[in-house]
Amino acid sequence: MRATTRLAQVCLLLAGCLLVWILPHLSSWEPGRQPDLPVIYVITPTHSRPTQKADLTRLANTLRQVPKLHWILVEDAKVLSPIVAGLLSRCGLAYTHLNVSKPDFCQRSCVARGSEQRNLGLDWLRRNRGPLDSGVVYFADDDNTYDLELFEEMRYTKLVSVWPVGLIAARWYERPLVGNGRVVGWYTGFPGRTFGIDMAGNARFVLKGAKAGMQENDFLSKLTRMEDLEPKANNCTRVLVWHTRTEPAALYKHRKENISIEV
Amino acid sequence: MRATTRLAQVCLLLAGCLLVWILPHLSSWEPGRQPDLPVIYVITPTHSRPTQKADLTRLANTLRQVPKLHWILVEDAKVLSPIVAGLLSRCGLAYTHLNVSKPDFCQRSCVARGSEQRNLGLDWLRRNRGPLDSGVVYFADDDNTYDLELFEEMRYTKLVSVWPVGLIAARWYERPLVGNGRVVGWYTGFPGRTFGIDMAGNARFVLKGAKAGMQENDFLSKLTRMEDLEPKANNCTRVLVWHTRTEPAALYKHRKENISIEV
Repeated sequence: MRATTRLAQVCLLLAGCLLVWILPHLSSWEPGRQPDLPVIYVITPTHSRPTQKADLTRLANTLRQVPKLHWILVEDAKVLSPIVAGLLSRCGLAYTHLNVSKPDFCQRSCVARGSEQRNLGLDWLRRNRGPLDSGVVYFADDDNTYDLELFEEMRYTKLVSVWPVGLIAARWYERPLVGNGRVVGWYTGFPGRTFGIDMAGNARFVLKGAKAGMQENDFLSKLTRMEDLEPKANNCTRVLVWHTRTEPAALYKHRKENISIEV
Repeated sequence: MRATTRLAQVCLLLAGCLLVWILPHLSSWEPGRQPDLPVIYVITPTHSRPTQKADLTRLANTLRQVPKLHWILVEDAKVLSPIVAGLLSRCGLAYTHLNVSKPDFCQRSCVARGSEQRNLGLDWLRRNRGPLDSGVVYFADDDNTYDLELFEEMRYTKLVSVWPVGLIAARWYERPLVGNGRVVGWYTGFPGRTFGIDMAGNARFVLKGAKAGMQENDFLSKLTRMEDLEPKANNCTRVLVWHTRTEPAALYKHRKENISIEV
């Protein structure tokens, strides 16, 4: 009888321990929650326009489903926009909100749109992430379209990984050409470059990536060689990102309402 | 001692029951999973074009996060497209894939684009959902932009609910005007209608909605009266849907590759 009692007590203790272990896990039980994944830092330059909040809403809807993603949203603006700040505070993502105006000589038009913003995002990473942090950097425009699979393709980038981009340069796609698992050339509308690739088509390991050469338009050539590129998306045969553009909203002058409604 | 043993046995039994109850719930523990919610049937007309897969990918990324949503995607096409079918099979949503060509007299241009497709979606609901099924119908274009909050606003629609739409009719927004909790007018670019509202700006209860009057362009006036409309989105003062348009991709003729890559 004593043995039975002891057994019952041990069973009860074990069951109790199991419950104690299970209960706290219930509240954090989410599909895709994997604490050991490398972080993906998505740097997005953005500028004020009628479709800005819509585009950022749609991009947040996509990014929200990617585990371990940190969104670095950098406005081309003199001050942080309250509309963007409000959207970020509600979006459910880990994020950093920054701003920098484009240089004066770029106010009308500039070849490298978004460069100042991307550089500020990289500066933030250099200042806020140390040599022991692992993660990759991806430059995502705010009106492009992303398949969720893209992020898992890029997550284990060692130095620089590459893949096709759809609907770009007046083509169905551009892509790296791959032979024997290595990049051997480019199918592109702008030949003559060592790296015939758009921002949307590559990711970089954060610490090696975050150095001075990254600030240049041709940073890839200072960072790696073509033969060291890591082809993703089934040897660069799948399109998982599209260079879509949102049509500018043509707004005519109308009688305004007396209340202020955020759009 | 006998009492202690009995107590231990009872405790063990209770703990066991609790475990038996908890364990099967672990695998289905998902945020937002609420079996008693009314279903939202989203009917989306779509047509083949270079940006179609991108637009549908982005829309699926949004809809995937809405609990109890059934996507009825209706192609303007003679046969189901394999690209769309593949996308749907991987999208993680409950869906129905249909097709119907626009009528011959509409082949070049037609005022009510997408009407045949919307009607086929309603027909499917009439045939496949009975008087005991509850749910709402929403017509969502494939390149518009949706805040997730919109779907919870519309979910408990009694007959017809309404809200503002952003970036439409060359305005920042159109919206129903609300006084004392009822719709009393419209802020719109096209006055002179009883219901000054776009498809994006309203949802309907599925069974009362799915009747013959719905097939007409002016179905709302056959279905309800302005004073019975249910204003949502904080008395129609918040924009949760934007009538964005994806810029058509201008593709020029280029040397084709020897492999086929889906875009």
